[in-house]
Amino acid sequence: MTLYVQKFGGTSVANVERIEHVADIVKATREKGIDVVVVVSAMSGETNRLIDLARSIQPRPNPREMDTLLATGEQVTIALLSMALDKRGCPARSYTGGQVPIRTDSAHSKARIEHIDDAGMRADLTAGRVVVVAGFQGVDEGGSITTLGRGGSDTSAVALAAALKADECQIYTDVDGVYTTDPRVVPRARRLERITFEEMLELSSLGAKILQIRAVEFAGKYNVPLRVLSSFVDNPGTLISYEDVDMENALISGIAFNRDEAQLTVAGVPDQPGIAQRILGAVADANIEVDMIVQNVAREDGKADFTFTVHRNDFERTLELVRETSAKLGAWKVEGNDHIVKLSLVGVGMRSHAGIASRMFDALGSEGINIMMISTSEIKISVVIEEKYLELGVRALHSAFGLDAAESPAAEMPSATVSE
Amino acid sequence: MTLYVQKFGGTSVANVERIEHVADIVKATREKGIDVVVVVSAMSGETNRLIDLARSIQPRPNPREMDTLLATGEQVTIALLSMALDKRGCPARSYTGGQVPIRTDSAHSKARIEHIDDAGMRADLTAGRVVVVAGFQGVDEGGSITTLGRGGSDTSAVALAAALKADECQIYTDVDGVYTTDPRVVPRARRLERITFEEMLELSSLGAKILQIRAVEFAGKYNVPLRVLSSFVDNPGTLISYEDVDMENALISGIAFNRDEAQLTVAGVPDQPGIAQRILGAVADANIEVDMIVQNVAREDGKADFTFTVHRNDFERTLELVRETSAKLGAWKVEGNDHIVKLSLVGVGMRSHAGIASRMFDALGSEGINIMMISTSEIKISVVIEEKYLELGVRALHSAFGLDAAESPAAEMPSATVSE
Repeated sequence: MTLYVQKFGGTSVANVERIEHVADIVKATREKGIDVVVVVSAMSGETNRLIDLARSIQPRPNPREMDTLLATGEQVTIALLSMALDKRGCPARSYTGGQVPIRTDSAHSKARIEHIDDAGMRADLTAGRVVVVAGFQGVDEGGSITTLGRGGSDTSAVALAAALKADECQIYTDVDGVYTTDPRVVPRARRLERITFEEMLELSSLGAKILQIRAVEFAGKYNVPLRVLSSFVDNPGTLISYEDVDMENALISGIAFNRDEAQLTVAGVPDQPGIAQRILGAVADANIEVDMIVQNVAREDGKADFTFTVHRNDFERTLELVRETSAKLGAWKVEGNDHIVKLSLVGVGMRSHAGIASRMFDALGSEGINIMMISTSEIKISVVIEEKYLELGVRALHSAFGLDAAESPAAEMPSATVSE
Repeated sequence: MTLYVQKFGGTSVANVERIEHVADIVKATREKGIDVVVVVSAMSGETNRLIDLARSIQPRPNPREMDTLLATGEQVTIALLSMALDKRGCPARSYTGGQVPIRTDSAHSKARIEHIDDAGMRADLTAGRVVVVAGFQGVDEGGSITTLGRGGSDTSAVALAAALKADECQIYTDVDGVYTTDPRVVPRARRLERITFEEMLELSSLGAKILQIRAVEFAGKYNVPLRVLSSFVDNPGTLISYEDVDMENALISGIAFNRDEAQLTVAGVPDQPGIAQRILGAVADANIEVDMIVQNVAREDGKADFTFTVHRNDFERTLELVRETSAKLGAWKVEGNDHIVKLSLVGVGMRSHAGIASRMFDALGSEGINIMMISTSEIKISVVIEEKYLELGVRALHSAFGLDAAESPAAEMPSATVSE
């Protein structure tokens, strides 16, 4: 029998009306003869209410007790959704993380799932019941309640789908799928029918935060087909799975961009082993994450230029740190720019197609956009350009790679936001 | 080492400030070198909020899911209180009913405790931690969350005290103890230092709802000394335990009264076996509870009068039912009166003292109060009088049995109300 895991985030269960709507979706799936395990988050706002309560007592609350507190959020939702299903003549049974049990390590607030016992859920499914599981939470070996960290409900859903060998893990969110790029920037952006895990990972890490990266990695690792779809719009969304024959024609899946970056360049550093480490060591020690790193070949004078990007919030602090290091290294100068954006082409198709990079540079160049930095991986090409060219650049690439929809169906869609 | 179980009801943990205050009380107890297991209810209002949510989905919510929902109320409180203790340098560890575990049967919403495993709590106490347990909830054999029914937190506390062989089970509530009678009626009512389980049971069943009857029965059965005290007033409250030598001097412990009764009399019923059953059978079948029952001896004509009381809400319906039955029995007439009250003297001392009844009747008679019905048990004498004489009657008895305080310390106390 076909089995779906269906996950509904906080906005999908925000109030009683929405919970009733979720029950309708689940019931409709059941009526197609499909078994369903539902995973739900806390009603939106509830988690913040609980956090505020805790912080009013302890600014940095005891982690074990914080998890015990937060876990009540999903527990409320599983009970209410089970009632809504029961009312529809659709027998259901709720499970907290501890009742499944979803066994995790003891790292409170960021626990990792170690094992899921599917016996209880299997028995309910066999008996014709819908299984309703609290996302985001588990239980450690000592019986303490743990949470997987914010957004962990996606991870719960994927882990349950893997444990149950579900046919699909459907993540219902407030967008109806993965788009070729942000519809706010390119109205003719298209919803993708399919995309690979790798592409989704690249898009996620580049700011298209529809799914939690950890959930996508997990789904890829256990080969759980993931479907992103909307609980408000009736269309099949986007299926995320492994590359297959159909996909070979798709050269580029999408264009991601990130406004949160800032660029730093150390000019005239001695071209010696260990230089990169000396520059970035101090940055890493300050817990600042470095994204792109580019070093050109040494000139005749034995000096090289070293460029990297960090989150824009870390720009000032990084500049300070790098200036100190550079002085010791005898570099010529340090330059910084926090008016840049990163723009990335993502697609498994580029593996087997030459000329993608040159077509990208050509498209940007013909619009007069200067490329300040380039970095490539097997399925991605990223460039740094001036911030003011962001929209122009994205639209130019979207057209150049044939991603434009005939019309602009995306215009009426809500914009992509974090799923939880 | 001395061990107390301290139970705090909904009003004692109504908000963060009150929870902090509870943490102060627990910490002060710890500083006396006493081990503490705390039992808490949901923050007041929370249970009603959850019930409203559920009912807006299902008017009669699925019982298993209702328990899963309601159990979140206490789970929030145990986490917050543990944080408040942690903040005070008083290490604590929270336990849901399922984590203890408090094993119950599967009667959702009115489960009975079957077994408590004290191993986990013992280990925490030995390690110097305060154990904070969610009241009102347990877990059945299949791992489903159960609740003990409204007010069940008192029962949880007593059951935990019995399992842990605690030296005292302290029930913190919004009154500072058990009084000789309601201070609203008799300003010179006195707080009792001690009272027996049996007396407390009689007082509880007569409307002085400081403690749940079930909790008192439980405490008596397992001989757990119970102390009722206030989280707002600093005094030792009232200790409820088995009769001991000190108590023999106390003739009467208190005077209870109940305004919720109505009286029905069937006059001229044939004095035959099975008559009582025929009259009350129809009443019982309608799920109406009968309180006092009195039948006088048959007169010379072989007819008797049969009188009983029911809850005032059931008066009209009972009158109807009894009229039907009486017609069949050939009784002369049926009379009803819903302007009566029941007034009871309670005290283990009356067991060994003659003349209590006559002193009671004398005290009422000298105020011109007519007694309409009398019923006695080993430690209680109840009379039914006209409602308008309630206050006068209670004050007369309070004085006649030497219960008046020298001054009226009770005047400033909050009045007795249900503890949860």
